[in-house]
Amino acid sequence: MSTPAKPLTTVTRAGDSLIMPAFASAHSHAFQRALRGRTQRRQSQPGSFWSWRGLMYELVGKLSPADVFNISRFAFIELLLSGVSAVGEFHYLHHDLNGSPYDDRTLLADAVIAAAQEAGIRITLIRTAYFRGGHRKELEQAQHRFCDESVDLVLADVEKLRQTYQQEPTVRVGVAAHSIRAVPVEKVKELADYASAHDLPFHMHVAEQRQELAECLAEYGKPPVALLADRGILQESFVGIHATHLDETEILEMGRAKATVCLCRTTERDLGDGLPPTSALRQAGAKLCVGVDSHASSDAFEELRAIELDERSRTEGRVLVDEAPDLLSVGGEHGLTAIGMAGSSGDSVYLDGSDPALLDATEDSAIDAVVFAASPRAVRKVLVAGKSVVEEGRHPLYEKAAADFIGTLKKLQLA
Amino acid sequence: MSTPAKPLTTVTRAGDSLIMPAFASAHSHAFQRALRGRTQRRQSQPGSFWSWRGLMYELVGKLSPADVFNISRFAFIELLLSGVSAVGEFHYLHHDLNGSPYDDRTLLADAVIAAAQEAGIRITLIRTAYFRGGHRKELEQAQHRFCDESVDLVLADVEKLRQTYQQEPTVRVGVAAHSIRAVPVEKVKELADYASAHDLPFHMHVAEQRQELAECLAEYGKPPVALLADRGILQESFVGIHATHLDETEILEMGRAKATVCLCRTTERDLGDGLPPTSALRQAGAKLCVGVDSHASSDAFEELRAIELDERSRTEGRVLVDEAPDLLSVGGEHGLTAIGMAGSSGDSVYLDGSDPALLDATEDSAIDAVVFAASPRAVRKVLVAGKSVVEEGRHPLYEKAAADFIGTLKKLQLA
Repeated sequence: MSTPAKPLTTVTRAGDSLIMPAFASAHSHAFQRALRGRTQRRQSQPGSFWSWRGLMYELVGKLSPADVFNISRFAFIELLLSGVSAVGEFHYLHHDLNGSPYDDRTLLADAVIAAAQEAGIRITLIRTAYFRGGHRKELEQAQHRFCDESVDLVLADVEKLRQTYQQEPTVRVGVAAHSIRAVPVEKVKELADYASAHDLPFHMHVAEQRQELAECLAEYGKPPVALLADRGILQESFVGIHATHLDETEILEMGRAKATVCLCRTTERDLGDGLPPTSALRQAGAKLCVGVDSHASSDAFEELRAIELDERSRTEGRVLVDEAPDLLSVGGEHGLTAIGMAGSSGDSVYLDGSDPALLDATEDSAIDAVVFAASPRAVRKVLVAGKSVVEEGRHPLYEKAAADFIGTLKKLQLA
Repeated sequence: MSTPAKPLTTVTRAGDSLIMPAFASAHSHAFQRALRGRTQRRQSQPGSFWSWRGLMYELVGKLSPADVFNISRFAFIELLLSGVSAVGEFHYLHHDLNGSPYDDRTLLADAVIAAAQEAGIRITLIRTAYFRGGHRKELEQAQHRFCDESVDLVLADVEKLRQTYQQEPTVRVGVAAHSIRAVPVEKVKELADYASAHDLPFHMHVAEQRQELAECLAEYGKPPVALLADRGILQESFVGIHATHLDETEILEMGRAKATVCLCRTTERDLGDGLPPTSALRQAGAKLCVGVDSHASSDAFEELRAIELDERSRTEGRVLVDEAPDLLSVGGEHGLTAIGMAGSSGDSVYLDGSDPALLDATEDSAIDAVVFAASPRAVRKVLVAGKSVVEEGRHPLYEKAAADFIGTLKKLQLA
């Protein structure tokens, strides 16, 4: 079966199937898939983003390149089985266990890209810069694996990755500053300028947790998005991850810049990040896309509808952010643009038209059924770059990838 | 395969399967399944619970007994395919299109019960009283189908239903007052006293929407739960549906009574009800259970974890309401108790242990994987009262029930 000639923007019926555009998940940390189901108990107290981060750092302290490959390959296959054909990997795990760069500095980035290529998912490797534990904060042990001494070292890695993968049709490279906590604003600006000059995606975690606001105010006298606007970093190519806690001025700044907000609601729900001002961002002119982030869940359908549903919970109204056709673009096309893959749409997902959530879909209601009620159960076939990667709800590498994933978890004493 | 001898309270591995206790969904309006995916567009303005209710009333104005049967049977099969083995049907659709009782007053209740029996799901038919459109409000057209002239008429129906189904092992009967909007408090008290005297479940929608608070304050000078506490209605057997908007005193009253709150998060998210004070209710001593309510979604796993996840969004912490083992009881055992089926647990769900969300589950992490990451995709077999109702992820009546459901939707011009 050949790829549809035009980019899909709607849901169509073909025989027993509904065909939808594939999802693009613009923000992923694939290695965190190993933590799923293992951070849900109370430690000394109920818990927070920060106690979760402690568990994540424990994992970071143990991962070998083979572990990163095995976890990532399985996570990407799981995404494909949920209808995702493209992922933006926000990659900040760079160096060896002791914090020294590997002889081959991009060893771990290459491992993640190889995992994506074996799985058959498109990937944008977003090479992420990290310089410090926070304003005047020493690095914590795990953070040495993330850190570089200079922007030049980061950009040299980006250059190398661009060179290595320039002929690969399903691989792109992007640039990120981890957060204002981890990257002083002058360096954020250098990275953003490089990305802009080379037409690469530029991503950054912003305003995920209130503690970041307090720290940013203390260091710069402004909250993060206001600071970025002030320094000319907030542009149309800017992709802010989370953007949960913005003041009204910052919402307007995001809109004025036509910047993109990448919402990762299943992770944000899991981590207790709070509820973003989503409809205000849309009304201001910001664009939206979605990301699987920590892989706490990999239900791309729930990830997408959560944007609208959580805004309903926050504001006690209905149909606030977007109707289903626009949400479908948020789930696919806008995510592709955010990871530098605009124009590579055409990937499609064949859904089982007899699935209980879909069998009553009409031409009029099909998009609504897909967006508001479907689940990975309905995914039968996924076409990526014209090639069928999932067939009859199964991925040909599943058993092998699952066994290697379990092997890694056992080695890490997580299984 | 025989039913496990003891009630299941955990997740165990058996060969390639994980076995979990079946879900009990304590609050359902099965006929509303026909609206799924058909209320997600803007009408004149973004929308609200009340504009949604307008669409629901349009449907109510058209349903025949055969329609109610066809929609309910399909909705119940869909629940079974999501691992639900028992449902509390909050049944308020009683009379003919013109509002007159049918010659056989329980015709529609019997249709819903027959649908459940054919599907093979346990049902508690919660016969719901409705007397008025609101304090000093005329009945709207559709509401005539819900209304009775007296408590005696309602209780005569309850008596008849109890008589009819007393020998049926998978059918129970309960009593409900629709809401303080629809039932004056004196009549709520009469109904609750009858339920209490006959050891039947007593359910009531409470504090779902802020408008209800305002109306209740205007009529009684107190918000709904405070009023119920004042009149002695808030007892351990009381099941309050939603309980989204409670003040601190009401939270303590719910706890002091050891009453149950039935949360229906997928519907509450859909309808923009808001975020309930869930951990405060738990800390005060209230019990929790879950319900599919409008069937906006029928993912029982998402329904369950949403209790914890939405509380994280509201309060920006983690592991707030309950850890996974207690949530599993909220999803099953507590729901059974809430619908008068305590002791009939033992129903079980066999999950595909090779599902991507479950294959890395260990003995320690299996409950967490099931509660926080599983989806209906993993449901392979459902045992109800010792009988296998779902096998290999399929229900034997699916094609027939689906065809009749579609037939009804076409007749209603919804498909």
